Amino acid sequence: MPKVVETQSMLLQLILVFVIFSGFVKNGNAGITSAFIRSEWPSIDIPLDNEVFAVPKGYNAPQQVHITQGDYNGKAVIISWVTPDEPGTNKVQYGVSKKKHDFTAEGTVKNYTFYNYKSGYIHQCLVDGLEYETKYYYKIGSGDSSREFWFQTPPKINPDTHYKFGIIGDLGQTYNSLSTLEHYMQSGAQAVLFVGDLAYADRYKYNDVGIRWDSWGRFVERSAAYQPWMWSAGNHEIEYMPYMGEVIPFKSYLNRYPTPHLASKSSSPFWYAIRRASAHIIVLSSYSSFVKYTPQWEWLREELKRVDREKTPWLIVLMHIPIYNSNEAHFMEGESMRAVFEKWFVRYKVDVVFAGHVHAYERSVCFFPHMFFPLFYNLVANVCMLRSQEKKILKETVWWFIQNPINF
Amino acid sequence: MPKVVETQSMLLQLILVFVIFSGFVKNGNAGITSAFIRSEWPSIDIPLDNEVFAVPKGYNAPQQVHITQGDYNGKAVIISWVTPDEPGTNKVQYGVSKKKHDFTAEGTVKNYTFYNYKSGYIHQCLVDGLEYETKYYYKIGSGDSSREFWFQTPPKINPDTHYKFGIIGDLGQTYNSLSTLEHYMQSGAQAVLFVGDLAYADRYKYNDVGIRWDSWGRFVERSAAYQPWMWSAGNHEIEYMPYMGEVIPFKSYLNRYPTPHLASKSSSPFWYAIRRASAHIIVLSSYSSFVKYTPQWEWLREELKRVDREKTPWLIVLMHIPIYNSNEAHFMEGESMRAVFEKWFVRYKVDVVFAGHVHAYERSVCFFPHMFFPLFYNLVANVCMLRSQEKKILKETVWWFIQNPINF
Repeated sequence: MPKVVETQSMLLQLILVFVIFSGFVKNGNAGITSAFIRSEWPSIDIPLDNEVFAVPKGYNAPQQVHITQGDYNGKAVIISWVTPDEPGTNKVQYGVSKKKHDFTAEGTVKNYTFYNYKSGYIHQCLVDGLEYETKYYYKIGSGDSSREFWFQTPPKINPDTHYKFGIIGDLGQTYNSLSTLEHYMQSGAQAVLFVGDLAYADRYKYNDVGIRWDSWGRFVERSAAYQPWMWSAGNHEIEYMPYMGEVIPFKSYLNRYPTPHLASKSSSPFWYAIRRASAHIIVLSSYSSFVKYTPQWEWLREELKRVDREKTPWLIVLMHIPIYNSNEAHFMEGESMRAVFEKWFVRYKVDVVFAGHVHAYERSVCFFPHMFFPLFYNLVANVCMLRSQEKKILKETVWWFIQNPINF
Repeated sequence: MPKVVETQSMLLQLILVFVIFSGFVKNGNAGITSAFIRSEWPSIDIPLDNEVFAVPKGYNAPQQVHITQGDYNGKAVIISWVTPDEPGTNKVQYGVSKKKHDFTAEGTVKNYTFYNYKSGYIHQCLVDGLEYETKYYYKIGSGDSSREFWFQTPPKINPDTHYKFGIIGDLGQTYNSLSTLEHYMQSGAQAVLFVGDLAYADRYKYNDVGIRWDSWGRFVERSAAYQPWMWSAGNHEIEYMPYMGEVIPFKSYLNRYPTPHLASKSSSPFWYAIRRASAHIIVLSSYSSFVKYTPQWEWLREELKRVDREKTPWLIVLMHIPIYNSNEAHFMEGESMRAVFEKWFVRYKVDVVFAGHVHAYERSVCFFPHMFFPLFYNLVANVCMLRSQEKKILKETVWWFIQNPINF
């Protein structure tokens, strides 16, 4: 249907990228929105032979390198990479000086198939016991093909700590994606909170799906190998493709993008929490079951109790589908999760919910549960941004709205 | 909290059981509700040494025997049973005369653990290529320990065929459960549509969970070995129990209660469809993901297109959580699925949605999507029963409500 195709095409021209500060609780400085407005490049995928997808030189050289936080408090990373020709070594050598790697961690390796595509050898290695606020250099691969990267650990969990997060969602691998990524890398942000829809590989068929996951991994390496990207899953990760016999949801995503879910007592890589600097970040899964009694619901109920606002005054939630949005193609899609979790977000005074999916910038000042304020029901409100200079003011504002809670 | 406990206790005293006729499309006879009102026995589980849980005599004798429809159109059954001592044979011998089993089918065997409980050997065997409207006798087990049962195949798919379904949900294994089951068996119904919450084994801890699944299997055998019970999962099947290290949802249920999901092109045993006599029956999963783009959503969209009202004028949907209900403990729990699927139920003129969960009898005359008729929003309406003597009248009634569909 031409209308649908046209809408999707238009959507792909808009990529969400913005940056927030988390800072002093008594003198909060948040909600600084970038003035950057991207030119509209053609929303077509960059050809595979473009240099942005270049395969690193050398036999079996590690590629698609990316890191994510590996524990609850930011003293660990999980390093992932792919070797194309043979499994090779699972070792990560690392240290605090360039070219001097005093420590070694041992990871795992696996691969998977998708239709007739066979993935490279996917390595994942937990590097833990790190010091806070320290620059680490790490080396992966063997001999002449080995490659070196670095990352900076965050400050200790502390309410008075500055930290700069970037929010990216719905990235893909078009010319616009490249513009977004390059702009993000100039922002000075220190870690990415990714709100779902990574590679858009499901726009392809058969073996090209896997090939486009590989190209995307090489595409984002320029940032994701040097600072942690915290993952959440979107609809383009589902990849339910019965026509080619692939019906296990999230097969590519699960194999390629690990999360530290066990560290927050989650039973699934799709929902988890981390604490970083002054923020407690909760990642929810729009496409896993979340109604009352489900594991995600039970887990979130417990995780919210573990939030300590004295240590992490910022409570941030990530999900893919916004619980409110004004996009015609995605009208009311967040209603199912809104009906279940919105009251908890209000009760626990969540500061901000970041979502993707609609490829547009929409926000509300704060939540209005529609059982109380039905007139606000259709607010364009997928992101509840902090507008106050002083966080205390926001807290009082939110409190005002829950003076008469029912069933909260 | 005493209030919650008291509510739950009261709820357990009420078990849903009723019977409908599906009959001539031009002279439909449905919605006959049983006059039976059960006395209130104590809502406590029957002790394990009660004769209703008796283990059949003989070494390794098959127990917990149950059957379910095994294909799309009713010419197959899946027979399941448990052998306690050793795997034994996977064979089912069957035929059309008592004591004369001309045919053999070969099944599979497996077992699982739950905490330190180790299940018996769970056998599942597809018996297909059956004739319609035929009584089959089947034998399982070996030698002196073998056991014989029988079942009746349904009539061929036909709009003018009579068939009598029973609806049971939230059964458990209390004295009330026994009363319900015995009453059901006197009803003359030919197959059970089970709307979730089977054994309530999750009321127990550690190894007793598995033990209560076993006792429930022996409890329902008196009916389920002789006529197919069509399964759907409820919250008591989730069994997310982190305190004992069991976090894989539906582990017991999935191992014990197979469904013919592949026959309706479903990728999951939790949602599927069967056709039986004059009915097309769609089973949905309240506790699997169902929002737009998920496998369950994609599958249902396609399955609804496959409904042929000329052949199966009755379109019936089963789920565990009613999309409307008036139960305080479960207030608004069906809202997430309502927001996604209600419009499809209206568009495809679903005749009746059966649900369990609230342990009470509530119904509406037919669906009123609240975006059109918000004043009906809180109707006590978990079951949309057919009140008309002639189905045609209902069709015209429903049509009236969708004269101006939006986004359907």
